[in-house]
Amino acid sequence: MARLHSFSLCPFSRRIRLALAECGHETDLVSVSPWKRDESFLILNPSGALPVLETGGLTVCGAYAITEYLEENGQTEAGEKRLMPEDPAGRAEVRRLISWFDEKFHAEVSGPLAHEKLARRELSAANGGGAPDTTVVRAAIHNIHMHMNYIGYLTERRRWLAGDQLSHADLAAAAHVSVVDYLGDVPWERHEAAKEWYARIKSRPSFRGLLKDRIAGMAPPDSYADLDF
Amino acid sequence: MARLHSFSLCPFSRRIRLALAECGHETDLVSVSPWKRDESFLILNPSGALPVLETGGLTVCGAYAITEYLEENGQTEAGEKRLMPEDPAGRAEVRRLISWFDEKFHAEVSGPLAHEKLARRELSAANGGGAPDTTVVRAAIHNIHMHMNYIGYLTERRRWLAGDQLSHADLAAAAHVSVVDYLGDVPWERHEAAKEWYARIKSRPSFRGLLKDRIAGMAPPDSYADLDF
Repeated sequence: MARLHSFSLCPFSRRIRLALAECGHETDLVSVSPWKRDESFLILNPSGALPVLETGGLTVCGAYAITEYLEENGQTEAGEKRLMPEDPAGRAEVRRLISWFDEKFHAEVSGPLAHEKLARRELSAANGGGAPDTTVVRAAIHNIHMHMNYIGYLTERRRWLAGDQLSHADLAAAAHVSVVDYLGDVPWERHEAAKEWYARIKSRPSFRGLLKDRIAGMAPPDSYADLDF
Repeated sequence: MARLHSFSLCPFSRRIRLALAECGHETDLVSVSPWKRDESFLILNPSGALPVLETGGLTVCGAYAITEYLEENGQTEAGEKRLMPEDPAGRAEVRRLISWFDEKFHAEVSGPLAHEKLARRELSAANGGGAPDTTVVRAAIHNIHMHMNYIGYLTERRRWLAGDQLSHADLAAAAHVSVVDYLGDVPWERHEAAKEWYARIKSRPSFRGLLKDRIAGMAPPDSYADLDF
């Protein structure tokens, strides 16, 4: 069986877990801490980046390479669950939105929140460990509104973020939002349209594994795993 | 003719300029400042990220989407200049290395140096403008050695970074290195193997445009455009 080296609250790992599940691939998850040096993992991926997929003798490193690998090789036999449209404009739109969430949302929201609230609990003081910097946390929580508005703007015009079909764009957005939701920082009450979209994706079978994730000493809010949040 | 919205010293813009030139596509360059809000550009790409390719009625936003667009649609008629191998392992390797340079090298070297030495000259004091933070600059210059060693390690085992053929991986690496070289911060004397690789890619016709780039008030060192550096 294929193996995915990943971390439960890494948004890049999460979006690939969602993609594998949507494509019907059962995968063994191998947990890797993003904050500890692990020589055996660095042999697989010298950059240290998560996730890494081992499948059929091949090692595919990083969310970008895995996304395109699945697109080129990973369809179900029925070929039904395509996560990327066929036409060039549709494909460019999916990839534009993947970049939006993996780069912009991560830089402005999910990256800083995960660093302050998760990484700094794990790191030594010499490596930047300690209590969250409340200025950074406040800025990230301020930034999330623009992104939730953008999700709402898109889903009021299209069924899913990039068009009529579920795509890697939805999985990227949902993966990043789900990490922030675990931390209790998504202001759902102010973003009805985005909430309607997230409720739809959260209730898909591919999401079940993510909703069961728990990390030691930091429980999510009750609404995290509630499909009727 | 296709148009590429880009900035001369943006490494992501540079790697797409190289890819377009290697594929034989003539493109009009439209200069966009990464540091000024430009409403007409934000209509093209609401995230504000560079580069953006307009071609045949299509708008393709971001280096990721453009790379894969060129791979799927942008070959020369002769089909000779492929920048991605055909086999899944080779494609995963090219994309792994693109992530290495666009994410890791950018986070550790080219991003901080460009921010301190370029962006802070352009930004207002309220937005973080000012003199370069020498601690950040020193850290980035320290980090570059590991990356130059890695380029050397790869090219002592393969003709090009990802294998026997020039690929998007070489263009990504060369684009980021070239920005640091413009700033005069590549320690070539300590990295012979990486220098041999860079001399080869620098002498390709696709590189000529990059070597002519100049930004106001900040000339590169003489060696920047010298093929025998």
